[in-house]
Amino acid sequence: MNDTQQGFIMYPIGKVQRGDDGIRLEIDEAYRPALAQLDQFSHVMVFWWADRFDNDDYRGMLQCEPPYAQGHVTGMFATRSPIRPNLIAMTTCKLEAVDEAAGVVRISDIDAVDGTPIVDLKAYFPVCDRVKDAYIPAWLEGWPEWMPENGIGLEEGEA
Amino acid sequence: MNDTQQGFIMYPIGKVQRGDDGIRLEIDEAYRPALAQLDQFSHVMVFWWADRFDNDDYRGMLQCEPPYAQGHVTGMFATRSPIRPNLIAMTTCKLEAVDEAAGVVRISDIDAVDGTPIVDLKAYFPVCDRVKDAYIPAWLEGWPEWMPENGIGLEEGEA
Repeated sequence: MNDTQQGFIMYPIGKVQRGDDGIRLEIDEAYRPALAQLDQFSHVMVFWWADRFDNDDYRGMLQCEPPYAQGHVTGMFATRSPIRPNLIAMTTCKLEAVDEAAGVVRISDIDAVDGTPIVDLKAYFPVCDRVKDAYIPAWLEGWPEWMPENGIGLEEGEA
Repeated sequence: MNDTQQGFIMYPIGKVQRGDDGIRLEIDEAYRPALAQLDQFSHVMVFWWADRFDNDDYRGMLQCEPPYAQGHVTGMFATRSPIRPNLIAMTTCKLEAVDEAAGVVRISDIDAVDGTPIVDLKAYFPVCDRVKDAYIPAWLEGWPEWMPENGIGLEEGEA
């Protein structure tokens, strides 16, 4: 529906690598200087591109009935689904180590599959990101009030 | 530096409008169904494109000395500056009202200038976004531990 509109271009800066020794974000050489001082933070927001869903059908999907909210037709902007008009996903991750020279950021977990392209990293600043009086819909009550200690991972069965 | 790389394209879904009666996110008609149920959340993460800085010089900037951290050369990934390789910015905002039919989302504040293109909205889920044991660098100690009640706004002098 957007063929006539001007778009904004993002380039990959690295990719997610899931291995037996944990999860690494591999940052392309050109972007490694941008990692300076990131190791001074406990958490990082990883912005990734849901390339598995990059086609017109998925990008045209505006509403869904989330598995966790049966009976509630929900707009994609009210979900965290990676399926949405612009396939920009964001996961807050616990930092384990940053090797600026090697371009390796080790994190505890992430809900992105192996090989997922990364487009940005942002340090987690509580003054920007931690909301004291947040509430969620009544049909989600009972969900945890905090991010799990090791963050959000893949759901069972995801590659 | 990326001319030969494949990029990912995002299309604007709306824009920020700052007026005497407050701040509205105007959502393009085609995307309004994606707002369904957003009004059930207290906060929304607004993903916007820092189009003022969309040139090769800004996108090539990898390090800076932030005004709040004199003497600390910092990689852009360790800052929240809108200047970075991919100009994707994200601000968590307090929701005041959502009018799905009219495509208007009213928020308390945002650090984006009038006319800024919006590329995504995501409801704020504490289980994803609220980190209990977050820490920041020693040279930022003393910063608030929570987002201000009305969120983050423009700095003085910004248009």
